[in-house]
Amino acid sequence: MTVRLDMEKELGTENPVFIEGLAGIGHIGKTTVAYLADHLEADKVGELYSHHFPPYTIVRDNKTVDLLKNNIYQLKRDDARDLVLIEGNAQASTPQGHYEVAEKIMELVDEAEASEIITIGGYGTGDVVEEPDVFGAVTTEKLKDDYSEHGINLDHDVGQIVGASGLILGLGHERDYSGICLLGETPGFLLSDPKATEAVLQSIEKILDLDIDYSELDEKVKESQEVLKKLQNLKGKQGQDQESQSQQDLGYIG
Amino acid sequence: MTVRLDMEKELGTENPVFIEGLAGIGHIGKTTVAYLADHLEADKVGELYSHHFPPYTIVRDNKTVDLLKNNIYQLKRDDARDLVLIEGNAQASTPQGHYEVAEKIMELVDEAEASEIITIGGYGTGDVVEEPDVFGAVTTEKLKDDYSEHGINLDHDVGQIVGASGLILGLGHERDYSGICLLGETPGFLLSDPKATEAVLQSIEKILDLDIDYSELDEKVKESQEVLKKLQNLKGKQGQDQESQSQQDLGYIG
Amino acid sequence: MTVRLDMEKELGTENPVFIEGLAGIGHIGKTTVAYLADHLEADKVGELYSHHFPPYTIVRDNKTVDLLKNNIYQLKRDDARDLVLIEGNAQASTPQGHYEVAEKIMELVDEAEASEIITIGGYGTGDVVEEPDVFGAVTTEKLKDDYSEHGINLDHDVGQIVGASGLILGLGHERDYSGICLLGETPGFLLSDPKATEAVLQSIEKILDLDIDYSELDEKVKESQEVLKKLQNLKGKQGQDQESQSQQDLGYIG
Amino acid sequence: MTVRLDMEKELGTENPVFIEGLAGIGHIGKTTVAYLADHLEADKVGELYSHHFPPYTIVRDNKTVDLLKNNIYQLKRDDARDLVLIEGNAQASTPQGHYEVAEKIMELVDEAEASEIITIGGYGTGDVVEEPDVFGAVTTEKLKDDYSEHGINLDHDVGQIVGASGLILGLGHERDYSGICLLGETPGFLLSDPKATEAVLQSIEKILDLDIDYSELDEKVKESQEVLKKLQNLKGKQGQDQESQSQQDLGYIG
Repeated sequence: MTVRLDMEKELGTENPVFIEGLAGIGHIGKTTVAYLADHLEADKVGELYSHHFPPYTIVRDNKTVDLLKNNIYQLKRDDARDLVLIEGNAQASTPQGHYEVAEKIMELVDEAEASEIITIGGYGTGDVVEEPDVFGAVTTEKLKDDYSEHGINLDHDVGQIVGASGLILGLGHERDYSGICLLGETPGFLLSDPKATEAVLQSIEKILDLDIDYSELDEKVKESQEVLKKLQNLKGKQGQDQESQSQQDLGYIG
Repeated sequence: MTVRLDMEKELGTENPVFIEGLAGIGHIGKTTVAYLADHLEADKVGELYSHHFPPYTIVRDNKTVDLLKNNIYQLKRDDARDLVLIEGNAQASTPQGHYEVAEKIMELVDEAEASEIITIGGYGTGDVVEEPDVFGAVTTEKLKDDYSEHGINLDHDVGQIVGASGLILGLGHERDYSGICLLGETPGFLLSDPKATEAVLQSIEKILDLDIDYSELDEKVKESQEVLKKLQNLKGKQGQDQESQSQQDLGYIG
Repeated sequence: MTVRLDMEKELGTENPVFIEGLAGIGHIGKTTVAYLADHLEADKVGELYSHHFPPYTIVRDNKTVDLLKNNIYQLKRDDARDLVLIEGNAQASTPQGHYEVAEKIMELVDEAEASEIITIGGYGTGDVVEEPDVFGAVTTEKLKDDYSEHGINLDHDVGQIVGASGLILGLGHERDYSGICLLGETPGFLLSDPKATEAVLQSIEKILDLDIDYSELDEKVKESQEVLKKLQNLKGKQGQDQESQSQQDLGYIG
Repeated sequence: MTVRLDMEKELGTENPVFIEGLAGIGHIGKTTVAYLADHLEADKVGELYSHHFPPYTIVRDNKTVDLLKNNIYQLKRDDARDLVLIEGNAQASTPQGHYEVAEKIMELVDEAEASEIITIGGYGTGDVVEEPDVFGAVTTEKLKDDYSEHGINLDHDVGQIVGASGLILGLGHERDYSGICLLGETPGFLLSDPKATEAVLQSIEKILDLDIDYSELDEKVKESQEVLKKLQNLKGKQGQDQESQSQQDLGYIG
């Protein structure tokens, strides 16, 4: 037992869209899918545990302990495609662990007979931007037209995706699933980036014909924007030093 | 064989309180439980070895070698609940190892049919305090009232527990055990913190209706307090420099 | 499943020369064998995947995702020995992974009943040179005369080979295969070194009686030479400082 | 297969002394046992390979490749106890690997029905000394009198032994073997320390009633002593700076 899928209920969805968002850069994946699960009042059906997760135990606000885990939800919809969601506060802590967890999640995708896979993460650029982009990477080229309608940038420089979001889509492609990885543009030094999360949610809203209430997120966006402004001021002051340093970097990737 | 439980005697306890304290920050867990085992004259019943422990071998004061291991004790009591104790100089050295060792210790908890789990560790704050707190994290919220009677602080900022103390309580909660993790407040840069150990022992004394003789510990507390005073003086001198540096940290966790 | 060989076609070669070149220093191995496969129009017959590869997923220029993998090709030749090639963008990320991937590749060598093994990598010297050498290490001493005819330097200071190129030749030697590891001399700080790749290709051309068209590589060589000149100028300016520092190193290896 | 014992010949010894010396600090273990095997003209009987060794392949002086491995020798003696030796250029590269390799070596000890275990390593003190000590750690206290006759220092501050030398003796003690770990005192920053190797060899000579010819080692000792003198001069010049720094260290281990 290095990865364990603990299902409390059987899946009752029909060819759902499978959406993954786990801990990662800016916590964009986890926050996006947790927000979806919460606001769509999705039904929790199981949990995923792994010996490959970091050896930490969470102490919640009410001072009770909780093992690191990923939570699985389903949502049956009459007028649109069903959803299966997985979100959580942990990814594997070793290379082999990453592959084993992703393979286990693929068992769930197989069992759900998913019609589409959407994986969500962040892409750190080092820069603070007013309107973060949502970068996309797809399983097959012919999907690019469909997804670009939903405000997803498919003309970017992202060269690789680290962790579950990439592996699940890569393994999915191998097994003939189609889908997309959405990466919210984020400076990379924020532990939480509600602005990028909002941008990703807006893309998903369009892909899935959802109607999302952003009010809870808006407050967090405001807070984070203030932090970013402080950081930009700080950076402005330090800018001259850093510039002279960066001239010594002679990047060459062939 | 990556974790091996080597029992010399069968457990003869009845629904004991299971207490764990292993190597860790300030060695508070290990020192506390070793002190209990020694002063209560508990009966050694077995050892736990693991390939996940660091690849070191201990040279004892008498120049004999000893593999890293955890020691298991039991104490039958007529007038109060029985105890099973595990203490030792090693924890696993990899994430997967931490989970596997914790699962093996849970086998012992299951076999003992423990009525309560108490795990012990340290929580490094970076600050030297006169009277270290004992922070608690519980399996279920309704236990908080009971434990707070015993001088345990259940209103703190501890967000996660690293290693065996957290995993055992987390796994225990999953299997419907109830219990608490006690974390002695410690500066974090001491290899041994008898003052915090004493604070944890005092809480355990109240929880378990014990009568502990602190005389052996008192001497070590005095020694460590002198070291701490020297460190505080040193810090006072360096304070101005550090303060100007810390103003550049803009911590933001969302 | 920690390493998986995914053959789309059966091997149709007869006692081929087996040539390996994977990701590594200066990407000389991967680039050399990929160039061979492309320009000889070799036939792709399979892929090798591993949980030991880094947990990254590649985003290709057309924005589709691709798991890290090694590609296997074969080339049947009427007038010369057949070839089996393996090249790819990943090596294992752990020591045990390196051995397991190499053992799996040896299964392919065994199945192909290879007559000779050629593994390709880079050797970082820290220096930029006009005409990079090709260093060789062989399975048995009596092969040195044969290979030195092909412009391969067999009088060098290379003491060890890191990763697949060394392990495959070492495991091959254990199983009585004969062969050579070719290491292109490279500064070590370039992610790509077309000049060293060209030098290795020229040696292989002679060993295998090939007729390689270098035109595509020549352009890349020109680009990289310009980068190297800039680096040398930079180094010239910094030289005095570094020299005084290096006098403090008292290297001693016994 | 993560550790493989490859015996070319069956062991023909009777209750031999088992002597281990592998790669490590100052290469004292490996050099000592290799010197013994060579000068006693011991008979090579097998090899030990492991996926836990570093993923390097050795290029020998004659430019042939060699997997990392440990070599096993036996020596039958009419007038004294037989010997089984294991020496090699590699130890495991992970904690779990260290334990697995040590367990495999113990299989050899069991099969040989060894009468005594001697493991050899180095102990880095940071200081250059004229006459390096040989520190000992034993399986049982009653052996200390026997061994201290042979010039072995059993009154030292060594607190732990890293790697195979410690684990083999620790595992041996668990299985009721008796023996000693000999640690040559070495500065710790030398890749080779012939002077400390000589000191260990002299102790072994006495324990085993050997008659060792030190002439080959003497030359290397002379060379290394010259390097050490240069280092001491260098240290003398830098001494004042380092002293002022070390006053800021407030070591406290409780």
